[in-house]
Amino acid sequence: MPCDDLTGLRITVDNGVATLTLDHPPLNLMDGVLLPSLRGFVNRVRYDTGVRVVVFDRADPEFFSAHGDMAYLTDPEALPAVTAAATAAAIAAAPDVPVPDGMNILEAVSDEVRSLPQVTIGKIAGFARGAGNEFLMYLDMRFAAIGRSGQAQPEAVMDILPGGGGTVNMARLLGRARARALELLLGSELVDAELAERYGLVNRAVPANEIDAFVDRLARRIARLRPEVVAAIKATVETITPKIPHQAYAVENAALFSLFTDDMVASAHKQLAAGVQTREGERDLERILDTL
Amino acid sequence: MPCDDLTGLRITVDNGVATLTLDHPPLNLMDGVLLPSLRGFVNRVRYDTGVRVVVFDRADPEFFSAHGDMAYLTDPEALPAVTAAATAAAIAAAPDVPVPDGMNILEAVSDEVRSLPQVTIGKIAGFARGAGNEFLMYLDMRFAAIGRSGQAQPEAVMDILPGGGGTVNMARLLGRARARALELLLGSELVDAELAERYGLVNRAVPANEIDAFVDRLARRIARLRPEVVAAIKATVETITPKIPHQAYAVENAALFSLFTDDMVASAHKQLAAGVQTREGERDLERILDTL
Amino acid sequence: MPCDDLTGLRITVDNGVATLTLDHPPLNLMDGVLLPSLRGFVNRVRYDTGVRVVVFDRADPEFFSAHGDMAYLTDPEALPAVTAAATAAAIAAAPDVPVPDGMNILEAVSDEVRSLPQVTIGKIAGFARGAGNEFLMYLDMRFAAIGRSGQAQPEAVMDILPGGGGTVNMARLLGRARARALELLLGSELVDAELAERYGLVNRAVPANEIDAFVDRLARRIARLRPEVVAAIKATVETITPKIPHQAYAVENAALFSLFTDDMVASAHKQLAAGVQTREGERDLERILDTL
Repeated sequence: MPCDDLTGLRITVDNGVATLTLDHPPLNLMDGVLLPSLRGFVNRVRYDTGVRVVVFDRADPEFFSAHGDMAYLTDPEALPAVTAAATAAAIAAAPDVPVPDGMNILEAVSDEVRSLPQVTIGKIAGFARGAGNEFLMYLDMRFAAIGRSGQAQPEAVMDILPGGGGTVNMARLLGRARARALELLLGSELVDAELAERYGLVNRAVPANEIDAFVDRLARRIARLRPEVVAAIKATVETITPKIPHQAYAVENAALFSLFTDDMVASAHKQLAAGVQTREGERDLERILDTL
Repeated sequence: MPCDDLTGLRITVDNGVATLTLDHPPLNLMDGVLLPSLRGFVNRVRYDTGVRVVVFDRADPEFFSAHGDMAYLTDPEALPAVTAAATAAAIAAAPDVPVPDGMNILEAVSDEVRSLPQVTIGKIAGFARGAGNEFLMYLDMRFAAIGRSGQAQPEAVMDILPGGGGTVNMARLLGRARARALELLLGSELVDAELAERYGLVNRAVPANEIDAFVDRLARRIARLRPEVVAAIKATVETITPKIPHQAYAVENAALFSLFTDDMVASAHKQLAAGVQTREGERDLERILDTL
Repeated sequence: MPCDDLTGLRITVDNGVATLTLDHPPLNLMDGVLLPSLRGFVNRVRYDTGVRVVVFDRADPEFFSAHGDMAYLTDPEALPAVTAAATAAAIAAAPDVPVPDGMNILEAVSDEVRSLPQVTIGKIAGFARGAGNEFLMYLDMRFAAIGRSGQAQPEAVMDILPGGGGTVNMARLLGRARARALELLLGSELVDAELAERYGLVNRAVPANEIDAFVDRLARRIARLRPEVVAAIKATVETITPKIPHQAYAVENAALFSLFTDDMVASAHKQLAAGVQTREGERDLERILDTL
């Protein structure tokens, strides 16, 4: 699986386990570079029968991924062009895979990741906010490092919603009672590993010094299984826990676009001026947003 | 939003957050007074665009709400008249809002609260049993004070079921595996804050000396959001976690009425004689019911 | 309810609570003896109105049930005959209850247990793996003894899947996000009481020296309820948390049979040679499977 052209990603394969490391400084922003690379990877690895498990990790010890690029929100004129360019690049990264009607490109990736034949595992140490946490929610499993991880969907305070599949995936992960999904989506709070486990946002909180060995052992054990067994288990589980229907993604996408207003743009400018999307500012994002 | 006529409720509004305080001594019983007031409030606040979050609290440090009025259960002759009077009062409190076919008035309120445009938050310190806990389960989110809260549905021991939406809302909150819903509904056990969190009955158990500040901060943060954002998030989450269908409420209501028998009336009299529906008795309700 | 012919089971009834004790040395294997006995019991107790709660326990302090008999997996020639014999015996144990099309006999028992009028409670101390844990997942509630219980579905490492209702019941119990179900089904890990509670595999982890009294108290309290109340609560909860559809079981069963290959048989022989299905080997099954 040649992936040298996928900027921002480092990929190694060992004993059936592919490890994808986000390496797109300074913040692993989900932007016009990283998003097409990720979509390109997803739609190549799908056909690589030598890869049976994919682990998603990050090079930066502090940031899994800060969030989407604020450039999408700051320029009302450029917005259509910017998103169009990123979308076009992401589409070009897997041109044969159609984006379903009514879904945006981030939602399409969510759906594509969910239907991978491989088992996908997220390892969360460092901040994962916005589109970064949305990406993690697509995966089959997630493990968070105690004292090191911080997950959040700050979009509501940014005058939008998590429109890359995050609203619907949060509701799916946190259960149909929706109480905890609403709390996190509306409260825009930073969630540590222990709370993430209690709320179902991750499978389990793991001590930071054990998470690498823990995920490695699990990934290797799964990679040793007969591929037919993995396929049969995934298919059978699917009968009980079906995928998010495209229609729900379309509702989310329409809601997102309805929120692209001048107020939102003004908020985004204020947030950038206050230090959002800098390493310093991102370390304390919730406090900054609370003071604006 | 004039609410001075709503007996048993104190309502304040500050920065978009309405705080409704149950103040209906001695036990905040859900009775012919409190229920119409609550329904009246729900159907007025719905149209008050100045209110974006509603927090439900209680004046009495020991009782959020003991439960429904036992008078509904003790007099087989009066029962239809008593419930009819309470129902008529509750209907009169929002005469323009129809009660769907097959649903009782408590279930109708459940459905009405769920469809409020505002975000609703319950703060639980003190006992909330029966219809009191049923009301809490309708809300978008719930937080329980560690060492102070006690939630229970004692109806089964009272020879009925939680028929004000409680059986179906419990099953919804505690997950489709139904194991924990059946345990609490059939076991009639008092649930403390920590277990309530582990079972999903509340979002989170919060230290008793922090819960006011915690809920206040969350409510204010949500109240500052653009109303369009809140509406969009609620609508999108709804696609994944739909409301309880009216049909399920109708099944619950029919089941409730099928249990109104002479045996039930006799039990209710015995329970009243043993101290149920007194402040003293309610402090240790589970033990009293166990000994009858 | 005469049950003396049900080999491997000890049954006592006291105050409406039947206690079924698995007593089929050396490992309480789910085999051609225990499975027909269990199915026979389920389809007799259903009509015994004197029994309102059934508690499932084991005589052996170390093993609730090791798993299904490996004999089903080791002989490709004998497999149809062996399973056919066990199935025939299980069918004969309740000849009037049809096995739905496309479902195997273990899945049929799952469905039959779920539709019992009684409330069923599993008490887990000791190992419960494979078909043993599958059986526990059918029950209404489960409690695990801290420091004593160990639940696992090791089937994937045995080149099959949990085909006795276990794949679909695991997905049901652990929630529709499927993240934790996939982890346990693919990771084949031994789950202790505390993790079982956090994942929803059991209602609650209970201190080992309290579990007998805890389950006893709960069972007795439920057994004292009016049967109409229990029936009404179960039926109403069912509207929100419906049974697993037969179609999902049929998918699981077809998947299971698709995995019965020569490779699987070879694995089974290797596992038996390494000590699987001996008391010594079963105490450390996960480590043994990891080294093969």
